[in-house]
Amino acid sequence: MAEELTGNVLVAQSGGPTAVINASLAGVIEEALNHDCIEEIYGGLNGILGILQERLIDLAEEPQQAIRGLRYTPSSALGTCRYKLRKEADFQRVVEVFKAHNIRYFFYIGGNDSQDTADKISKLAASTGWEMRVIGIPKTVDNDLVVTDHTPGYGSVIKEVATTVREIACDAEAMGQHDLVYILEVMGRSAGWIAAGATLAKRRDHPNDAPHLIYLPEVAFDTNKFLDDVAEVLKKEKYCLVVVGEGLVDSNGDYISTSDGNQDSFGHSQLGGVGDYLKGLIDQHFSGIKTRSMRPGHSQRAAATNASKADNDEAYLAGKAAVQAAMDGYTDKMVVLTRGDSDQYACETGLADLSEIANGVKHLPASWINEDGVSLNYQFVKYAGPLVQGEVVVPHENGLPKFVKLGKSAVQPLLPPYEVGA
Amino acid sequence: MAEELTGNVLVAQSGGPTAVINASLAGVIEEALNHDCIEEIYGGLNGILGILQERLIDLAEEPQQAIRGLRYTPSSALGTCRYKLRKEADFQRVVEVFKAHNIRYFFYIGGNDSQDTADKISKLAASTGWEMRVIGIPKTVDNDLVVTDHTPGYGSVIKEVATTVREIACDAEAMGQHDLVYILEVMGRSAGWIAAGATLAKRRDHPNDAPHLIYLPEVAFDTNKFLDDVAEVLKKEKYCLVVVGEGLVDSNGDYISTSDGNQDSFGHSQLGGVGDYLKGLIDQHFSGIKTRSMRPGHSQRAAATNASKADNDEAYLAGKAAVQAAMDGYTDKMVVLTRGDSDQYACETGLADLSEIANGVKHLPASWINEDGVSLNYQFVKYAGPLVQGEVVVPHENGLPKFVKLGKSAVQPLLPPYEVGA
Repeated sequence: MAEELTGNVLVAQSGGPTAVINASLAGVIEEALNHDCIEEIYGGLNGILGILQERLIDLAEEPQQAIRGLRYTPSSALGTCRYKLRKEADFQRVVEVFKAHNIRYFFYIGGNDSQDTADKISKLAASTGWEMRVIGIPKTVDNDLVVTDHTPGYGSVIKEVATTVREIACDAEAMGQHDLVYILEVMGRSAGWIAAGATLAKRRDHPNDAPHLIYLPEVAFDTNKFLDDVAEVLKKEKYCLVVVGEGLVDSNGDYISTSDGNQDSFGHSQLGGVGDYLKGLIDQHFSGIKTRSMRPGHSQRAAATNASKADNDEAYLAGKAAVQAAMDGYTDKMVVLTRGDSDQYACETGLADLSEIANGVKHLPASWINEDGVSLNYQFVKYAGPLVQGEVVVPHENGLPKFVKLGKSAVQPLLPPYEVGA
Repeated sequence: MAEELTGNVLVAQSGGPTAVINASLAGVIEEALNHDCIEEIYGGLNGILGILQERLIDLAEEPQQAIRGLRYTPSSALGTCRYKLRKEADFQRVVEVFKAHNIRYFFYIGGNDSQDTADKISKLAASTGWEMRVIGIPKTVDNDLVVTDHTPGYGSVIKEVATTVREIACDAEAMGQHDLVYILEVMGRSAGWIAAGATLAKRRDHPNDAPHLIYLPEVAFDTNKFLDDVAEVLKKEKYCLVVVGEGLVDSNGDYISTSDGNQDSFGHSQLGGVGDYLKGLIDQHFSGIKTRSMRPGHSQRAAATNASKADNDEAYLAGKAAVQAAMDGYTDKMVVLTRGDSDQYACETGLADLSEIANGVKHLPASWINEDGVSLNYQFVKYAGPLVQGEVVVPHENGLPKFVKLGKSAVQPLLPPYEVGA
C-alpha cells in the first residue's frame, strides 16, 4: 500500500466530447467516495481553462441520481476546452490553484494534448515540492492514443456509424435500381479509425453488404479509381453505399474537400465537406445516377442513444481505475485499456507514462486494409467488433432521452483573478 | 357484414421509405391471415412498377420471424418506386395483372401520389366489372396527408430529429463560450412539419433549451433577421442551435440552398444544402464564431433504432385496419388516424375517400408558429408530443440492429412481359 495522502480531488474534461466521457467522470466520483483520505471532490469547469480561472464546482453536492445519470449523458458535463497552456505563468497558476484548494489528486479525462498537459502539470507540481498524484483518463472518438489497446469513446462512435450504415442501407435497398449512390461522411480528420468502423455494418459472411466502399485518410484518393469503384459496385448491386472519412487526402497529402480550395469544373470554389465533393464527382461523370450525401457531423460523437455498452462500461472502469491507481501511489500515469491474447475478448486496465501517451499517435495498421484500398480485413473486424457490443439503455421522458445537467455548486475562489491568454 | 369476396391479397409500398412503413406491411399480412376468404397474400416489388412488370412475391411463404422482424426493420421491405402511371395502357395493365392473379384486395402503402394511383386503379377496376376492394394505408415522414390527423412515419422522424437535437445540445453546451453555432438541416422539402418537430427537444418549462431557432419553409427567410436572431441567442446562451428545414424559401418563394444557384460573396456557385448556406452567412458576417453544419439526410427517415413506439404501433394498426375495412366491404378508401377531443391522447382509425386524400396537402398551421417566426407554440407541442412516445426495442446481433430481409419467393408470371415507360 502506498502512503496515505489526504486532500481533495480535482477532475476535469478536455477536448472534443464523446458519448461516454461522462461515464469516466462518474467512475472517478463514485470511486473517490470510497476512500477516506479524499476529503472533497471538485470538478474543474471547461478543462484547464476553468482551473486557471478557479472555476471549480463541488461534485459531492450533486444528487446521486445526477451522478448515475452521467453514465448515459453524452458530452462533457463539466464543459471542455481546446485551450493549451502556453506560457510558464499558466503552469504556475495551475499549481497555485492546486495548492490553494489542497488538490492532492488530479484526474484529467482527454486525448493526447490533454495528457501532455497533465504530464507537464504533474512534473511541475513535483518540482515545486507539492505532493500530489496526477492520473490521466483516455478519451477520444479518434482512437489515436498510443499504448492503450483502444480509447473510450471509439466503440460508441463506430456503433453509431455502423448502425446508421445498416439503416440507410435498408433505405437505399428499397430505392435503388443500380442507379443510386449514398455517401456518408464520417468524422476523423487525421485517421480512418471511424470510417473503418463502418465495416462492422456488414453481416458476417455477407461481404457484399454495405458499406461497399470505404475511403480512408490512410489511402491517397484517386478520382479515376473512385469513379471506377462506384461503377463496378453499381453493376452488381442495386445501390452503392460509400463511407468517407472527413480527412481524406490526395497523393500530395492535401485534404480533399470542397471547403478546402477545391474547385468544380467551372473553376468555382465549393463549400461543404468531402462527401459533397465525391457527390459532385459522380454527378459530373455519370448520368442517370442519383447521389445523396449525408454528413451527420458532431451528432456522431454525441449519440448516447446508440452508445456501446462495452465502451460505456470501459469508460466507467477507466475512471474508477484512475482513482485506484492514485490510491496505490501512482502519479504521472494514464490509465490504458488492454486485452488478453485469448480469442475471447476481455478488457482490463493498466497504466502507462503520461509522457509516452503525449508524444504518440496510433495509426490504423496498413495491414488491416485490403489491397483494394476500400475495405478492411478480418483483423480489423476482430479488433473493433468487441468494442460495439451491448446497448446502453437511456431513460426517456416524454419520448426523448432524459440527460442530466449538473447543479454546479461553485467552490469559493481563494486566489486573485487570473487573466487567461494575456 | 359485407358479402364475402374470395380471392388473393396484393400489398405494395411506394414513395420514400420511413422507419415504420414495414410495420404497416406486417399489419396487413398478420390481419390477412385471419380471414378465410383470403387465399394468397402477395407482395408487389417496387410498388406499382413491380406490379406492371408482374414481379410478385408470396408473402405467406415468409417465416413468421421475418414478418415479426418487419415491425422494427426500416424502409420498404418490398422495395419502392417513384414511378407514376402515365398512360391508359399502364392502368389497363395493372387491372390485367389483378385479374390474372385473382387479386380481390389491393393495399397500397404510400403518400398522396400513391393514394391517387390507388384511387384511379380502384375506379378502373370497377368500371371493367372486376370486383375488388382497394384500401390505401398512409405513409410519409412529411406528414402532409389531409384528413388523417397525422401520418405513420412522422412520429418516428421527429423523435429522431429531437433526439439528435438533445444530443448535440449536450455537445455544444460543453464546447460553447457564446461563440458556437450548430446548424442541423432536416428533411422536409415542401413543409416544415419535420423541422417543427425539433422543438420537442426542449424540456417542459425550459423555453431557452435548444433548438433556439427553427427556420421553416412556411416563413420566408430574411438574411438580416437570421443574423440578428443568431446574435441575440449568442448574447444569452453559450451556443446557438439552429434547425432548418431543407425546403427553406425566400420572399419570392425560391429555395434557399447553395445547390440551387445561390452564390457566395465571390460570385461562386456553391454546393451543399441550406444548412451549409446558413453556415456561410454566419462565417461571412461574424468573426470569432465557430459554425458547424450537420446534414443527416436520409438517415433521419431510416432511424429505426430511435423509432417512436406510438408511431410504430399506429403504423401496424393502420395495416390491420385496412384489411378489416376491406373485409367490411369498403373500397376506394384510405385508412386515416383520428384522435379524440379529450386531453388524453387516444388514436383510432377511420376511413376517408381516396380521392379526397389524393388532391390535398396538409400545411403546418400558421397559428402554431410564434410571432418570432422561429419557434412553435404549445398547440404544436400538444399535437406532436404524443406521436413520439415510447421506444421500439430493436433486437441486436453483434452489437448492431438485426433487420430482416424477406426471402421473396417469386410468384410465377402469367402474362406476357410489359414494357414500362414505353
